Amino acid sequence: MQATSKQDPSMTLCAFYTSVRSYTEKLCEPLETEDYIPQPVIDASPPKWNIAHTTWFFEEMVLKNFVPDYKVFDENFSFLFNSYYNSIGDRTARDYRGAISRPTVKEVFEYRKYVDEKMADLLGDDVPAEVRDLVVLGLNHEQQHQELFLTDLKYTFSLNPLFPFYDSDLAFDESASGKGKFVEVRGGIHEIGHNGEGFCFDNELSRHKVYLEDFAISDRLVTNGEFIEFIDAGGYNDPMLWHSDGWDWVKQNDVVSPLYWHHDDSGWRHYTLAGLRDLPMDAPVTHVSYYEAAAFAEWKGCCLPTEFEWEIASSQLEWGQRWEWTNSAYLPYPGFKKAAGAVGEYNGKFMINQMVLRGASVVTPAGHSRPSYRNFFNPHLRWQFTGIRLVK
Amino acid sequence: MQATSKQDPSMTLCAFYTSVRSYTEKLCEPLETEDYIPQPVIDASPPKWNIAHTTWFFEEMVLKNFVPDYKVFDENFSFLFNSYYNSIGDRTARDYRGAISRPTVKEVFEYRKYVDEKMADLLGDDVPAEVRDLVVLGLNHEQQHQELFLTDLKYTFSLNPLFPFYDSDLAFDESASGKGKFVEVRGGIHEIGHNGEGFCFDNELSRHKVYLEDFAISDRLVTNGEFIEFIDAGGYNDPMLWHSDGWDWVKQNDVVSPLYWHHDDSGWRHYTLAGLRDLPMDAPVTHVSYYEAAAFAEWKGCCLPTEFEWEIASSQLEWGQRWEWTNSAYLPYPGFKKAAGAVGEYNGKFMINQMVLRGASVVTPAGHSRPSYRNFFNPHLRWQFTGIRLVK
Amino acid sequence: MQATSKQDPSMTLCAFYTSVRSYTEKLCEPLETEDYIPQPVIDASPPKWNIAHTTWFFEEMVLKNFVPDYKVFDENFSFLFNSYYNSIGDRTARDYRGAISRPTVKEVFEYRKYVDEKMADLLGDDVPAEVRDLVVLGLNHEQQHQELFLTDLKYTFSLNPLFPFYDSDLAFDESASGKGKFVEVRGGIHEIGHNGEGFCFDNELSRHKVYLEDFAISDRLVTNGEFIEFIDAGGYNDPMLWHSDGWDWVKQNDVVSPLYWHHDDSGWRHYTLAGLRDLPMDAPVTHVSYYEAAAFAEWKGCCLPTEFEWEIASSQLEWGQRWEWTNSAYLPYPGFKKAAGAVGEYNGKFMINQMVLRGASVVTPAGHSRPSYRNFFNPHLRWQFTGIRLVK
Amino acid sequence: MQATSKQDPSMTLCAFYTSVRSYTEKLCEPLETEDYIPQPVIDASPPKWNIAHTTWFFEEMVLKNFVPDYKVFDENFSFLFNSYYNSIGDRTARDYRGAISRPTVKEVFEYRKYVDEKMADLLGDDVPAEVRDLVVLGLNHEQQHQELFLTDLKYTFSLNPLFPFYDSDLAFDESASGKGKFVEVRGGIHEIGHNGEGFCFDNELSRHKVYLEDFAISDRLVTNGEFIEFIDAGGYNDPMLWHSDGWDWVKQNDVVSPLYWHHDDSGWRHYTLAGLRDLPMDAPVTHVSYYEAAAFAEWKGCCLPTEFEWEIASSQLEWGQRWEWTNSAYLPYPGFKKAAGAVGEYNGKFMINQMVLRGASVVTPAGHSRPSYRNFFNPHLRWQFTGIRLVK
Repeated sequence: MQATSKQDPSMTLCAFYTSVRSYTEKLCEPLETEDYIPQPVIDASPPKWNIAHTTWFFEEMVLKNFVPDYKVFDENFSFLFNSYYNSIGDRTARDYRGAISRPTVKEVFEYRKYVDEKMADLLGDDVPAEVRDLVVLGLNHEQQHQELFLTDLKYTFSLNPLFPFYDSDLAFDESASGKGKFVEVRGGIHEIGHNGEGFCFDNELSRHKVYLEDFAISDRLVTNGEFIEFIDAGGYNDPMLWHSDGWDWVKQNDVVSPLYWHHDDSGWRHYTLAGLRDLPMDAPVTHVSYYEAAAFAEWKGCCLPTEFEWEIASSQLEWGQRWEWTNSAYLPYPGFKKAAGAVGEYNGKFMINQMVLRGASVVTPAGHSRPSYRNFFNPHLRWQFTGIRLVK
Repeated sequence: MQATSKQDPSMTLCAFYTSVRSYTEKLCEPLETEDYIPQPVIDASPPKWNIAHTTWFFEEMVLKNFVPDYKVFDENFSFLFNSYYNSIGDRTARDYRGAISRPTVKEVFEYRKYVDEKMADLLGDDVPAEVRDLVVLGLNHEQQHQELFLTDLKYTFSLNPLFPFYDSDLAFDESASGKGKFVEVRGGIHEIGHNGEGFCFDNELSRHKVYLEDFAISDRLVTNGEFIEFIDAGGYNDPMLWHSDGWDWVKQNDVVSPLYWHHDDSGWRHYTLAGLRDLPMDAPVTHVSYYEAAAFAEWKGCCLPTEFEWEIASSQLEWGQRWEWTNSAYLPYPGFKKAAGAVGEYNGKFMINQMVLRGASVVTPAGHSRPSYRNFFNPHLRWQFTGIRLVK
Repeated sequence: MQATSKQDPSMTLCAFYTSVRSYTEKLCEPLETEDYIPQPVIDASPPKWNIAHTTWFFEEMVLKNFVPDYKVFDENFSFLFNSYYNSIGDRTARDYRGAISRPTVKEVFEYRKYVDEKMADLLGDDVPAEVRDLVVLGLNHEQQHQELFLTDLKYTFSLNPLFPFYDSDLAFDESASGKGKFVEVRGGIHEIGHNGEGFCFDNELSRHKVYLEDFAISDRLVTNGEFIEFIDAGGYNDPMLWHSDGWDWVKQNDVVSPLYWHHDDSGWRHYTLAGLRDLPMDAPVTHVSYYEAAAFAEWKGCCLPTEFEWEIASSQLEWGQRWEWTNSAYLPYPGFKKAAGAVGEYNGKFMINQMVLRGASVVTPAGHSRPSYRNFFNPHLRWQFTGIRLVK
Repeated sequence: MQATSKQDPSMTLCAFYTSVRSYTEKLCEPLETEDYIPQPVIDASPPKWNIAHTTWFFEEMVLKNFVPDYKVFDENFSFLFNSYYNSIGDRTARDYRGAISRPTVKEVFEYRKYVDEKMADLLGDDVPAEVRDLVVLGLNHEQQHQELFLTDLKYTFSLNPLFPFYDSDLAFDESASGKGKFVEVRGGIHEIGHNGEGFCFDNELSRHKVYLEDFAISDRLVTNGEFIEFIDAGGYNDPMLWHSDGWDWVKQNDVVSPLYWHHDDSGWRHYTLAGLRDLPMDAPVTHVSYYEAAAFAEWKGCCLPTEFEWEIASSQLEWGQRWEWTNSAYLPYPGFKKAAGAVGEYNGKFMINQMVLRGASVVTPAGHSRPSYRNFFNPHLRWQFTGIRLVK
């Protein structure tokens, strides 16, 4: 799962485009046509939608605006594959993406090919900075959907009693990196946010100062074995460990373990993209909600790091196995500005009711993340490859 | 849409089996692989599920019980394609059928072929009456799913902004049959229920006497044009015409017309299996709920027929364009007995909260229905080809 | 709990009015002011609302229409205390009745007094038939609310951990009447519906013929002891005994016993209007849904009576302990006509999605019911004093 | 509405106790008995519950633990009037508080009197620091419920078509204080949190440093007149101004104005504790959600202050008219520690999914708030006296 899509500084935009776009198609190789369709829950989009929507981004944001007399591939697609851009217009209801069997998968690949050809023409010439910025944004957007492609597919496959596998190499059962020590970090004034070199999303700006207290952060993610100790100690039955909303969530959903875990006579197993596997005790616990992460930390007498603590400490940590829940709400940085036009809807309007995750996961395309990267989800969601790191 | 599946008395069981099973596959011909998957609402099963479940019926009810040492095609399918038989065991949650991309469509067709071969072996020999009865039940069951195949597909396609068409010959826009007269029917004691010749479902028994008053029944279904008069007269805005539950349904769902109708500058159009079409004024109104049928009847100062009135009058009516809502609740006849074993779950457990529909519709396989046939749905449902006939 | 409100044929309308109205006020005697307010569930109206709404009926239907220059007590009450009459106008949302603390209880009693005085003036004179009919309807309506007063109050009190009691004489723990024999009833043509003497509701008309098979009906209601046998035999855990909708209801609500039953170390107890009591084994089982009644009958290899069977047999039965679930849906009789004007909304618009109950219960005012009386509720509801009678 | 409950430093604990407790009873004076009961929505507790629960706090946390052989007033009350303390045990479901008509209001006042007498005995002696701290916490808790008493009552009364008034002096229609200027505040390192003198809640600790950029904050709250400009400019119809969750909230609830606003031919009016009034254009806009506050700020090209900006600027502002939404999520400060025992559940478990409000409102008891005070609610809630202050 090493994506070849990292944008090497020496890589031309055209090469970066080709690299990212072809990696999406590589991800599709193990799929049957049927797998492209289901959307069992609103958060998990169908593969067909993921690969069409990323193409739509280039047609809608770039080709329509910067190629004179551009002829759209299909005039319905502007509506069909819009995700959430109110400024662009109406769109397929988000929870009906799985009802849309047409266009076929083959037609969507033709759409990709058509757009790729037009993009190649555009990128062959000198590209104005405005176009370059949008293309780089579109490629980073596509990388985000590459990750969603796998997390969404895992969720859908997990509901199938046959437990189909996607790729036998992708169990992600490697042990947690690190020595299990707490690293001391000095507080004081630190700079937070993207430092200005290379691409970043608008939510990583503006770079600004924060004041932090001293803290110590674990150099290893919490493991499955440690989380089983929490379970065995009655962690899911003790309301004193949980946020009030978290406890309601546990009770209403009968939560007794991380997502995808199964318990039978032979012990704990978990569903992976490589099928149902024995649970590896030394691997990082995965697919936990913020509520579970916070309850585990409480049980340990620790905390989750704030996103600022995490960013400051990140150079001293190995990260990239799991997205790490922080104890920071997803809110704008001082000086945050939404971009003009449709891309202004990219991030800002989601800055409420979500918690920040930092780092990257095993399904994040290589080179996509960075220390200042801010991922974010609702605190009850678990279908991403989320994990837990503790601070004291 | 003339099904070749009618069981001619002279037809062997084997020929009937082949006829019905091959008709299902003929229905599949216009589909793309993608179309087999979506289930946008709990009532509308995916085509793949419909064609697998009908095969499951023969494997589960016949082959497993009557073929010594029968080897199942795939041991998971007993679970995967069970619809609602508690006596057989757990099953895929009914609202998750659309999440199941595997087995592939190709594999399901292989399953059909495998079962058909085993059934051919079984039916080649002398068949005990018990097996014959189950096979005939299974074929009538499959005919019901042939109808669901089309009604479910129409529902799913209707949600697609592209309004895909299934077959350009299947708009079903023919004018309502009949002269628009009310036929007088004499009351008194009548016999109701199946009369003993040929196949019937358990819910058509036992044949019993009812006493009816004199009544007059229309020889024609209510047309689209007549229903537009109801709309234009404010029918959807007048609570006095509606049942209390019906009025709540109208308000909560913002219902302003039958299902699949669209209104724009050029007037009313409706989505059909042949795509979006102008609404034909003389065709029978279709896709109405019981609530709408009852409100229309109230507005006309008429009633819906009871299922007994309908059955007695049926020999004097042309029927088969639309399933006709009756003013009878779906309840057991005197002397009703559930069959022993799993097939006892076929009908009886649904005898609450549903209204009876009589007749047949343009998508009912030819030869499948009969005067004593009892169809049934919840009063708010509209995805079947339902229509309205009035009595005075 | 012997209501004095029976309309003796020799009783004047004025005396009947006084009798019914004063009985309502007698029912209020054990209440504290606080008890008049809560509405914990949409079906259980607050006592204050019950006593105001019955008064509203006389003001709205009689005084406003038949007393020249009638001055309403408070112009807001037309809105506040309308139950479901769309023809009269907007009204307090049905689920917000418990939010309305004003007018005070005292003011509502003043409203009653005011209306009673005006009614006394009106009824002192010769009363036209139209008025007489409305007044008799209003008094029967008030009797229905006398029963609701107690059933709704029982529901509300049952939610209070203190288990308050209303009247220590009203446990209703008397043993089931009857000898436990099945009474044979001959079929053939019978007349059903009200026979024309005295008051009846519109839903009891028109009187009409039905044809019935022979049947045998128990002369005793099912007892608590018998129902415990059903529980102990696993009745709530066996889907084969239940309607499909009933089984869903059991699972979604974790139903394990009739409403108001509590199990602890000392066995079964039940909440009554006289507080928490040991469950009397020989008393009729009470507060069961139609689903539970039907599942019990299935377990016994019996049926519930149809409403026609019940009516024909009623002269041979002792009844009046519990409302008896029938296996008949609540639908109009042949020739049913809604009354003109607002009272036309009294019954007809509820004739869908409900099952008929026959007989009367221990909280039905004496003289209120009769053999042709048709009560009706949704099949999942249990807060009425409902019971089970079997037929073979 | 000047509460006499401020704890003057020279005031004895005993006097403070008496002052706060008697103010609660003063708040009850305008109520009818009926008003004590309704709970129309989970967030708005009944007055009876508010006055019983605050008493429960002293019995449960103080008297039971520190008075030898203390005899509880009623052993059921520990269960009945527990709010959310899992460590103390089960309790009345939060949404059933309005179903509990008994104990009566009179009995609850007797409960108050009983507890007050026992507390007077306890406080008459030398009080250990541990007890003093719990009593002061209990009094601050009661002050919070004094505010809830009024906000909950306003919500309940607002649902009554009669628009009852509570106190004709309490319209709170005074003009917004301030000159409408933006005050410049210098950034740098600032100290945040309670500074150690007098009482504070645990969520105000520990005092810690933050780094802020320079900012400018309005010296006046946004007025009704300014908010009407937002409405007239189509603010509720433009998704570009709203958070994604906020836009969903607007659409799902058909929100077109702040809570309690009514529009008719004579313009805008609003429901107040003094009844329905013309909307005063110069008064601060009130009863807005965080979503509305944020959308208004976006429309103005401004922001909401963070809670840190607010705290630093607070000495330069007039505040206390409305609780002011900040753009800070409610999260623990560095070094936050939950207290041992049941009071540890007071604040910490709510630190998710809520936004911080700062300041105080016209219904906050005088002396209760302070610059470091952190109030918090879900972003969609509006029943508190919430308002908007802008920063640039």
